[in-house]
Amino acid sequence: MNSSRCAACKHLRRRCPSDCIFSPYFPSNNPRRFAYVHKIYGASNVGKILQDLPVNCRAQAADTLCYEAYCRIKDPVYGCAGMVSVLHQQLNVAECQLARIKAEIAAIKNETSNVKPHEYQQQVESTALPSLSPYYLPDQSGSTLICYSLPTWFE
Amino acid sequence: MNSSRCAACKHLRRRCPSDCIFSPYFPSNNPRRFAYVHKIYGASNVGKILQDLPVNCRAQAADTLCYEAYCRIKDPVYGCAGMVSVLHQQLNVAECQLARIKAEIAAIKNETSNVKPHEYQQQVESTALPSLSPYYLPDQSGSTLICYSLPTWFE
Repeated sequence: MNSSRCAACKHLRRRCPSDCIFSPYFPSNNPRRFAYVHKIYGASNVGKILQDLPVNCRAQAADTLCYEAYCRIKDPVYGCAGMVSVLHQQLNVAECQLARIKAEIAAIKNETSNVKPHEYQQQVESTALPSLSPYYLPDQSGSTLICYSLPTWFE
Repeated sequence: MNSSRCAACKHLRRRCPSDCIFSPYFPSNNPRRFAYVHKIYGASNVGKILQDLPVNCRAQAADTLCYEAYCRIKDPVYGCAGMVSVLHQQLNVAECQLARIKAEIAAIKNETSNVKPHEYQQQVESTALPSLSPYYLPDQSGSTLICYSLPTWFE
């Protein structure tokens, strides 16, 4: 063992070889980064995933594995997939808003030739929509199921 | 060994105990479901994650683990995190569109008192925006880096 072992080799209490698959992506000054992926995937699986990739893709793969492992530790039920679900719902809300506002603008355009300016103002005001409000992001509180409720004002 | 082993025990070539942690979530008629999580997390890590959860959360956890494992197999560099990144960008695009369209409507409202109907129509037309177009979803083609390009018409 030497003092310049990477975080993975330190964690695994082993010598850090010169061609260590973990060393470039798990520096010794960030031990939690390896601890996360070790807990969720195991060192062997992380090593296999990195080894099967071209060298220029490995840093990005290590980053995303860390992110997903961190998400799973924070939220053991939904993990990163919970974030995908929430973002899908938020996107759906935003796209519904856009579709509605565009339909309303189109309707106003169809009526514009026969109305007076002050009536226009009333019509334009009717297109005002509430802002996108913050949503509940997945968070594991104790061992209860997570609430993914979203505002329903757009329905 | 018996003929009613779950997919996990079949995959691991072992007897399926009556209290098998995998059995309720990895039925024998869907062997790929377990193969995915086994390849990415390893059976032991999946078993640990499930075991640490209350029984009523385990089905959802198994589903999300399968989803994330499938994403990682399809896209070994970005995995499920790639989807999070793409959705974040799509949401940002949609929210930029909404903010812009609301600002334009507010500007029209401010001008309505002094313009004629046909001028209104021109103003309303200026709020028309292109539809949300489909984006490149993460897909691992060979071993090249994935393109996460998004349309830039909203800038």
